[in-house]
Amino acid sequence: MNVCTKVYKTVNNLKHISLFKGCESAFFDELETQGQSLTCPKGRILFISGEQADRFYYIKSGWVKLFRETLDGTQAVVDILPAGHVFGETSIFSNNNYPYSAEVVESAEVIALPTLVLKTEVENNNKLALNMLNHMARYRAQQDKEIEHLSIQNASQRIGCFLLSLAKQDSVGATTIRLPYDKTLVASRLGMQPETFSRALAKLRDKTGIQVNGATINVDNLKQLSSYSCAACSSEFPCKNLKA
Amino acid sequence: MNVCTKVYKTVNNLKHISLFKGCESAFFDELETQGQSLTCPKGRILFISGEQADRFYYIKSGWVKLFRETLDGTQAVVDILPAGHVFGETSIFSNNNYPYSAEVVESAEVIALPTLVLKTEVENNNKLALNMLNHMARYRAQQDKEIEHLSIQNASQRIGCFLLSLAKQDSVGATTIRLPYDKTLVASRLGMQPETFSRALAKLRDKTGIQVNGATINVDNLKQLSSYSCAACSSEFPCKNLKA
Repeated sequence: MNVCTKVYKTVNNLKHISLFKGCESAFFDELETQGQSLTCPKGRILFISGEQADRFYYIKSGWVKLFRETLDGTQAVVDILPAGHVFGETSIFSNNNYPYSAEVVESAEVIALPTLVLKTEVENNNKLALNMLNHMARYRAQQDKEIEHLSIQNASQRIGCFLLSLAKQDSVGATTIRLPYDKTLVASRLGMQPETFSRALAKLRDKTGIQVNGATINVDNLKQLSSYSCAACSSEFPCKNLKA
Repeated sequence: MNVCTKVYKTVNNLKHISLFKGCESAFFDELETQGQSLTCPKGRILFISGEQADRFYYIKSGWVKLFRETLDGTQAVVDILPAGHVFGETSIFSNNNYPYSAEVVESAEVIALPTLVLKTEVENNNKLALNMLNHMARYRAQQDKEIEHLSIQNASQRIGCFLLSLAKQDSVGATTIRLPYDKTLVASRLGMQPETFSRALAKLRDKTGIQVNGATINVDNLKQLSSYSCAACSSEFPCKNLKA
């Protein structure tokens, strides 16, 4: 069945989550007492946009897709998040409703945490409010960049940019980049139809000489990709500080 | 000369700015003492992306464009803001550097306010931190929607959506919508080349029956526009709560 399994182990070790840095023990105690560790299969919908947001989530492993559906049934992907990310937390600023839906796209272990405890602490602890402001400012910079790229990069440059974000950016010489999830998902993350993605990837290969073998991309030198993709970007390569 | 003129009048009446709601008198005193009222001509660059951010701004009248420039010289418009908006304020979360450039696009009166006073107050007054979190959450919802539209709406639907955002959304029957700034600027705000914009506007006219006369658009009924544009949107018309 496509449901999450409650893991019967203690929720602990939340102190390393950067959003909670410097918070008091009482806050962690409350989160841990009310928190639940869950393992969730691929395909599991964790919540639907507009639902009441009792829980927010921390990803311990796997990948989670945040998305919305339009009136005509098209899916718009907001983000695809790996381990280490928090989601659903900003519902405390939108009338306690989830601003997007969330689906597990690679089987995941997540920790479900009480939204109310977060909301109360943000309202009373300026340290947490400042962490959250910094967290949202980093996300905003990332979204600004995404809007910029959607406006001015062509589809091949956007794929190149995505591949560069996966690479160890200070590497010199030949590098191998692995797609973190399947190509259909990469396409939807980049706001492309699968057929547009295939054509744009082929063009990127022709323009930059990268070698594509399934989910593995071999690059002789990252400069191949960056000189093509980063020409249509307001930041210089290597990119800095763009992860929320 | 293309410079701002300092207006020799007292900076006051900042209490109505929603970002500052509930702040203490001492904070307003400091802002007002160090603030400057400026009138700026069209074309004036207020700051450049990456510069040290000593001042953030409140727009009293006019329009201000926030933008970035790519390495190959293309301009990416981040936003075009009317009166009542604050900009440059998030530089306090990005190492005190402006995350974008700002240009006056319709002659404006702005108030320049000290960033350091804002930063110190946010760090010490949880009320202001919470205001700022709510402000950033609203902006985030707006950016999410923009990314969604750039990904799944066609150019004509995006123009239709922009026109709807300018209309009095609860109006029934015939309505007139006026473009707030020139068409080239509307095109760049929507991430389109001027020729793409013209073609897409013509298509929107054919699809929905709107009448375009220069900067004035006559609509028999907003439903004409909304049934076309909002089909490719995850929110229902009328739109709510999407202004930062």
